[in-house]
Amino acid sequence: MTVLKPQVPFFGNIFLLGVGLIGGSLVLDLRERGAVGKVAGFDTNPGNLRRALDMGILDEAREMCPEALEDCDIIVLAIPVVALDSVLEKGFGADVLVTDVGSVKGSSVRAYGKAMEKGVKYSFVPAHPIAGDERSGPEAARRGLFEGARVIITPIGEAGRDVQTIRNMWETVGGKVHFMAPAEHDSVFSWVSHMPHMAAYAIIDSIYRENPELIGLSGGGLRDYTRIVASSPAMWAQIAVANREKLLEATRGLRGSVDRIIQTLERGDSEELERIFSLLAGVRKGV
Amino acid sequence: MTVLKPQVPFFGNIFLLGVGLIGGSLVLDLRERGAVGKVAGFDTNPGNLRRALDMGILDEAREMCPEALEDCDIIVLAIPVVALDSVLEKGFGADVLVTDVGSVKGSSVRAYGKAMEKGVKYSFVPAHPIAGDERSGPEAARRGLFEGARVIITPIGEAGRDVQTIRNMWETVGGKVHFMAPAEHDSVFSWVSHMPHMAAYAIIDSIYRENPELIGLSGGGLRDYTRIVASSPAMWAQIAVANREKLLEATRGLRGSVDRIIQTLERGDSEELERIFSLLAGVRKGV
Repeated sequence: MTVLKPQVPFFGNIFLLGVGLIGGSLVLDLRERGAVGKVAGFDTNPGNLRRALDMGILDEAREMCPEALEDCDIIVLAIPVVALDSVLEKGFGADVLVTDVGSVKGSSVRAYGKAMEKGVKYSFVPAHPIAGDERSGPEAARRGLFEGARVIITPIGEAGRDVQTIRNMWETVGGKVHFMAPAEHDSVFSWVSHMPHMAAYAIIDSIYRENPELIGLSGGGLRDYTRIVASSPAMWAQIAVANREKLLEATRGLRGSVDRIIQTLERGDSEELERIFSLLAGVRKGV
Repeated sequence: MTVLKPQVPFFGNIFLLGVGLIGGSLVLDLRERGAVGKVAGFDTNPGNLRRALDMGILDEAREMCPEALEDCDIIVLAIPVVALDSVLEKGFGADVLVTDVGSVKGSSVRAYGKAMEKGVKYSFVPAHPIAGDERSGPEAARRGLFEGARVIITPIGEAGRDVQTIRNMWETVGGKVHFMAPAEHDSVFSWVSHMPHMAAYAIIDSIYRENPELIGLSGGGLRDYTRIVASSPAMWAQIAVANREKLLEATRGLRGSVDRIIQTLERGDSEELERIFSLLAGVRKGV
């Protein structure tokens, strides 16, 4: 009996723009599985670019110009949300498949729409791998980062062959792919990711304003929050502004819930507090 | 050369009122080190009491009446903050040393003051071990829970021999003891513990109100918060009310910080957001 080995898909040559934690980890895992050919790339930070070469994430560094991309099959844009607009507008060859990894999808879909109006012909599949931590840069890249991680793909128009390719790419590195409309994605993540991140800033901000020394007196109880707020400030400022309308809605929702707790405390109503806390304690089962 | 083994202090017989995570873990560790004689105890929850006997936390169950406490050297009150008042007022024999483990200290100091006015003679040393998680009950008790944990002691009046005994007891199980005035303790912990806990409730509350199904869509990003709000609702309602004034101050501070983030988002001011986030990202070094 002949046992067929599971076939690992092959994605050809990749151009990686932005060699940080996400892009670097993706390439490391694709390489380990033999799923890529040559990987060229670029980063506006020369130190990151050098480290990515040293670590074997990139085979070579290239400026991102049309000639340099001729032999590339997939371009992965692992760059800040705000930088995406100008890159997508620049355009690429008609044959290439472009994908991104940003935490906000409406803005990249809009940027692609504008680029299409200007006549670009390449295909774009927006994706958002839910992975990473407070560290950044290629030195934070590691194998296995996406094992079991959710990856949201927000296809533009019909989900054709290119969407399947990006789905296969993320599944090859262990991701669990889900599909959402871009607006739905941004609404969901404003609530479950972006607003809670703002809340962590607000918690640490209020403590720091009261007395900076309090942070050190917490005995570790604030460690989760100080870890969260140690994430890249530039990246989070850009996410916040790119998803501004939906994030405002969610953050106003948070303020409403803070107000309700304040009002219940003002009344000293421990029964009502216990009722609220009990309801929320049960929510965990759903996660 | 004779090497002297480090001497483990001995604390005599203990009566443990409340056989949950904290009290149970304390006794398990003291027993392992041979630092206690007989341990009797009681819990208003018969199931907890039975489990504490089965697990060998307690040698015997006893109602907490004066006769039952005659052979006890230390009484550990590991009970909810609100229950402390009536227990402290009941009084104990003059010889006994009473201590507690509550997260709010002003209220227990006030309760002891009232009891003193009624003529009680026993000594009381308020303590607060910063340990535990969302689990509760004796089944959650475990050895090593206090290894490296901060323990705040808020002595009443001068720090005499009894304070040293309680300090020794916590150091025996690995705690790092710090001294604070009760009001200072409650102020510090309203900011670094109680308010952040309320913030976690507010985060989950606002998401749940928007759409309960969002919680399941978070891809693990809400796990820290759902774990925090899974803590005992009754315990946290009591902590909130016992430390009401200071907690209101801290929670209003949180609201102010949420408002500042909302206002900056409304202006779409990404530079100012990045400035705020950068300042807070640096706070971590202090923890």
